[in-house]
Amino acid sequence: MSTQDERARQQLIDLAAEFYDQFASGEVPEMTLPTRTKSNIEYDEDSGVWVYGDRTSTRSANSVQGARKLLKATYTIDFLARQLEEGRSSTLRELYYLSESWDADEAAFSSQDESNQLVEDLEIVSEVTREDFHMRPEESGATLMGPLELREQTRRGEREIHCQEDVGEGGYQIPNNPDTIDFLDHDIDFILCVETGGMRDRLVENGFDTDYNALIVHLKGQPARATRRITKRLHDELDLPVVVFTDGDPWSYRIYGSVAYGSIKSAHLSEYLATPEADFVGIQPEDIVEYDLPTDPLADSDVNALESELDDPRFMTDYWEEQIELQLDIGKKAEQQALASRGLDFVTDEYLPTRLDEMGVL
Amino acid sequence: MSTQDERARQQLIDLAAEFYDQFASGEVPEMTLPTRTKSNIEYDEDSGVWVYGDRTSTRSANSVQGARKLLKATYTIDFLARQLEEGRSSTLRELYYLSESWDADEAAFSSQDESNQLVEDLEIVSEVTREDFHMRPEESGATLMGPLELREQTRRGEREIHCQEDVGEGGYQIPNNPDTIDFLDHDIDFILCVETGGMRDRLVENGFDTDYNALIVHLKGQPARATRRITKRLHDELDLPVVVFTDGDPWSYRIYGSVAYGSIKSAHLSEYLATPEADFVGIQPEDIVEYDLPTDPLADSDVNALESELDDPRFMTDYWEEQIELQLDIGKKAEQQALASRGLDFVTDEYLPTRLDEMGVL
Repeated sequence: MSTQDERARQQLIDLAAEFYDQFASGEVPEMTLPTRTKSNIEYDEDSGVWVYGDRTSTRSANSVQGARKLLKATYTIDFLARQLEEGRSSTLRELYYLSESWDADEAAFSSQDESNQLVEDLEIVSEVTREDFHMRPEESGATLMGPLELREQTRRGEREIHCQEDVGEGGYQIPNNPDTIDFLDHDIDFILCVETGGMRDRLVENGFDTDYNALIVHLKGQPARATRRITKRLHDELDLPVVVFTDGDPWSYRIYGSVAYGSIKSAHLSEYLATPEADFVGIQPEDIVEYDLPTDPLADSDVNALESELDDPRFMTDYWEEQIELQLDIGKKAEQQALASRGLDFVTDEYLPTRLDEMGVL
Repeated sequence: MSTQDERARQQLIDLAAEFYDQFASGEVPEMTLPTRTKSNIEYDEDSGVWVYGDRTSTRSANSVQGARKLLKATYTIDFLARQLEEGRSSTLRELYYLSESWDADEAAFSSQDESNQLVEDLEIVSEVTREDFHMRPEESGATLMGPLELREQTRRGEREIHCQEDVGEGGYQIPNNPDTIDFLDHDIDFILCVETGGMRDRLVENGFDTDYNALIVHLKGQPARATRRITKRLHDELDLPVVVFTDGDPWSYRIYGSVAYGSIKSAHLSEYLATPEADFVGIQPEDIVEYDLPTDPLADSDVNALESELDDPRFMTDYWEEQIELQLDIGKKAEQQALASRGLDFVTDEYLPTRLDEMGVL
């Protein structure tokens, strides 16, 4: 076992030992967690990310339902500890199905929501991430392209890969747990996270990564944990600026928000996943006006989402208030690829260089 | 320009020349296409794939609307021919936006459905595929893992990649146009197409590709054209059996159907995309019974989909009738990952070896 796996295993065993000690000393076993509701999420001004507030909830074995929750927790801990010993991994869905094979019928999960939530609970209580439990997501699939040489520790040995020279046009596929990666060498000036596949391909075709020493990270819509994690590591370890380039609508601003500030669902992981220094490139509502981009009208759901962003601490800056109010005013949204209405090279010859210069990245 | 690009360009120019000749000889220009409705799709017994029937529709410039369609077609042909000359490519969405920059306002597309359909029309009339026009999809993103060495012709030069030794755990990313790939060498015994990412990762973790000389193709749900195309090429050029492993529900049987027989939407491309020799591994309704898998009840939409499959010529075999009737009878469906209820290794130690042996693949 690696030191990291050994540590994760130990944290889990300690948790089970706590239940055992509670039993042994005649107490009713219990587990205390931060309350995971929206009202107990706070924006931490210092670190610039979402964190849990002070309220806590207790899972106690003093009811049948509570006892069952702790039973499921111990079976899950046992499974995860063995998985780490054996150097195996599994998906959240496999865990759910696997629970049907456990010898105590009462320990089987009744839905995947229940098993997913338990794994999140264990992440919080043990302070070990799901990735370090070797739990994989169902799909990841985002890619990197740019002047970065890395080493990935795979189950089949080490692989040294240059993310331009050793990959096809599809780029380097980020593994489920990017902490298996070491950064060896690079010529990157900045990290450019891109929402859509169409725009990612445009930038690669136009050679933007080579011309500007950019590492292009494809977000594929709302980014997977692996994508956010590797972005944060690139920023922290290589001291590189991160910029986020999305469509110009409220859902895309949330994509930026999740890269930069974390999400409510994973507030316990903000320090592991979020990059508060990440900046937003566009499409800005002001770009829609300035470049007269082809647009769609805002739907009611878009308007509601923009209004709720005005109340979201992550967007309470002069910049965002101005942009969001402008967008409500013009009543329009635009996609990244709408820049093609000015020609296929406009985004790489004009739009990005201008914006990145304004932002002080170039 | 490559010979292939030159040929594609010539087919497009010939099409425009036809309009010109019609004009020059005093005829009203027109373009004739197979009627692209469900009633004009036929299952071709000989080739085992979907093809268009005999009915045709004519787009004629004898109405304002028809004239506009032909105008859009000529502008699109002009754009595509220049794109091929310059060795560029673009997405369908970029084409839609780009049309706003054309000098004739009447040539701009009014919706992306319109531009997508025109590109499909041009594919049919010119007998050149969208990939050969250098039109990319918005997203592709499927991967290969297995004992295959290939050479990809990228815009940045050739890349020789072994799909186990030179890639991370994420595998080799299939490019948008897999016809840029040459197969150099391999130790593959069969191609295993897998629907879900969770199962793909399970097979890779368990070393199924190395133990059984399998090339694992991740379908990612309904497979992209690029995924279906490379599967067909692997089958045809390397003479390898193809098997498809999906969830056990009617939507997944359609995934199998689209790999094997093509889809109604791309019936004009069946010979380019479909692999009629592809076999279905499972999850079979009979597996649900035999292995007592965890299931969900069939929803009404599932029942309707199964019933319409009984009327689908692609599923009119004794095998499929038996399986579908069994499924309607038991009223249940199961996911691939439900096999984990028998342990994480059951799929690779038991299920697949047994099924592949039954099917004559092992």
